[in-house]
Amino acid sequence: MAVYTDVTDEELAGLLADFDIGQATAFKGIAEGVSNSNFLLETDRGRYILTVYEARTNPDDLPFFLELMRWLARHGYPSAEPVADREGRLVRRVRGKPCAIIGFLAGLSVRRPTVAHCREAGIGLADLHLAGNGFPMRRDNDLGQPAWAGMFADLHGDAETLKPGLAATIDADLASLAARWPRGLPQGVIHADYFPDNVFFTGGRFAGAIDFYFACTDALAYDVAVALNAWCFEADGSFNITSARALLAGYESRRPLSDAERAALPVMAHGAAMRFFLTRLQDWHSTPAGALVKAKDPLEYERKLAVHRASPDLVLFGAPA
Amino acid sequence: MAVYTDVTDEELAGLLADFDIGQATAFKGIAEGVSNSNFLLETDRGRYILTVYEARTNPDDLPFFLELMRWLARHGYPSAEPVADREGRLVRRVRGKPCAIIGFLAGLSVRRPTVAHCREAGIGLADLHLAGNGFPMRRDNDLGQPAWAGMFADLHGDAETLKPGLAATIDADLASLAARWPRGLPQGVIHADYFPDNVFFTGGRFAGAIDFYFACTDALAYDVAVALNAWCFEADGSFNITSARALLAGYESRRPLSDAERAALPVMAHGAAMRFFLTRLQDWHSTPAGALVKAKDPLEYERKLAVHRASPDLVLFGAPA
Repeated sequence: MAVYTDVTDEELAGLLADFDIGQATAFKGIAEGVSNSNFLLETDRGRYILTVYEARTNPDDLPFFLELMRWLARHGYPSAEPVADREGRLVRRVRGKPCAIIGFLAGLSVRRPTVAHCREAGIGLADLHLAGNGFPMRRDNDLGQPAWAGMFADLHGDAETLKPGLAATIDADLASLAARWPRGLPQGVIHADYFPDNVFFTGGRFAGAIDFYFACTDALAYDVAVALNAWCFEADGSFNITSARALLAGYESRRPLSDAERAALPVMAHGAAMRFFLTRLQDWHSTPAGALVKAKDPLEYERKLAVHRASPDLVLFGAPA
Repeated sequence: MAVYTDVTDEELAGLLADFDIGQATAFKGIAEGVSNSNFLLETDRGRYILTVYEARTNPDDLPFFLELMRWLARHGYPSAEPVADREGRLVRRVRGKPCAIIGFLAGLSVRRPTVAHCREAGIGLADLHLAGNGFPMRRDNDLGQPAWAGMFADLHGDAETLKPGLAATIDADLASLAARWPRGLPQGVIHADYFPDNVFFTGGRFAGAIDFYFACTDALAYDVAVALNAWCFEADGSFNITSARALLAGYESRRPLSDAERAALPVMAHGAAMRFFLTRLQDWHSTPAGALVKAKDPLEYERKLAVHRASPDLVLFGAPA
């Protein structure tokens, strides 16, 4: 949850003067998204989210993220759609920071997904991959496999603090992942952060995805691997095969995986666990005191790494034969 | 801003099952209110705020606060109205804490009130006093003048830390306030926390008040004094006579002050500054680290105390002759 930037009524009125969405009738900071500040904005014409982009989001990437959301919304996918101002601009500035006004998307995220939610989440992820097909922009995954060794170079000490001996284990993981990382799999737009808090449901059915601020161009199967890690582990650290099977079945009901993609899932899931372990380790000691946000525990992903390390084919038990 | 308590989708569904307001279609923690956790709740029937009451709010006082809001809403005052469950209960529990579901009130608070806002705020405060007339419940002001000396007894050291010599100054203030405190003024329901962030405007007009969780039975003029302090000081610490005149003129356009009430405003304003100075001093060192809320600076109210001490008749310059 995060509201890092204060936006006054006057600043809001100044911003809205350039849009054709009416006058503000309500405006409240909301606890949604981790990296940016979000506000519920109601006008006499509709409901919106004002997002103010903080340091973690590279302003140069905003056109990709916002054009992607617009593309998805206009290709039948339930994504919130950014609103352009009267001059057609999606990105504006407030308090010296980039911001965007985005249509309100109904739905609730779930805290403890059931097997049925996992199936719906899989459907929603496949629909995202299908709707993203043809999107003309490209953004490399700057948190993908080639980046991990460099990210960990500065974190050996933090890893040892977390758990003595962990740095050598991670180094070995990184070498193994680099050697085994699959190439040539189908690529496209991936969400890259498809966690339960970024997925909305209505009445138990998939209702949309939000927070596309890690979206990029990468192997579609990697997005599935991120989702398996995010949705199919129990609070006690065990991997729920039934949930994984449901997520994959939901996914494949819309977009069947190729044999190569299915075979790649174990190493992809191991790598996806590495990516979130590394960023959580980075954030663990660097979250500023006044951020009004709690850093996420890197040990959760250290445990997921250990599961994939010990049982490299585990996620395949969830895959259809 | 505050979201202290996490409410899961399952807990929310369990709560809503006892209400007749439909199914949740959106649910987001919002940065509103300092003491309690607030969530925007949308259902297929309407919009609501779910408030979870934290330790600072005494559960025994909730019937007073919620019945008052209901009374005000039903007597033409723009207050959010609590929703009763199917058994008629306004107070429920979630995560072991008391909670209430309250109708959504449109409007925006202003960060830097203009003179025109001050006039509207005065109108809204007088309307509150008029609408509260006849409300059958009573709650003593536990942060009123009789409580201040006891509150300060534990805070001498904190006052000295804030500003050497301040403890003796405050003790002298407290003695002077006790000696001069007016008795026998018209009493009724007061908001007792009528600050700009608790007052909504739409199109520049008063649109409602929220956060009645300090409301109590006390001198109506004391509420005016709290508002003068909260609305009519500039950021540089100076008292804006024009704003005060506008606030009082707005108030008196609905409910003229008696001569005794007008004469009491200076000591009431001095006392109202004392009340907020004391609670801010209490909070300054005691706000828990994980509260996601920033304690308000007690020095702001120390400066207001100094203004009233040096110019005891200052607020009267704003009063009509």
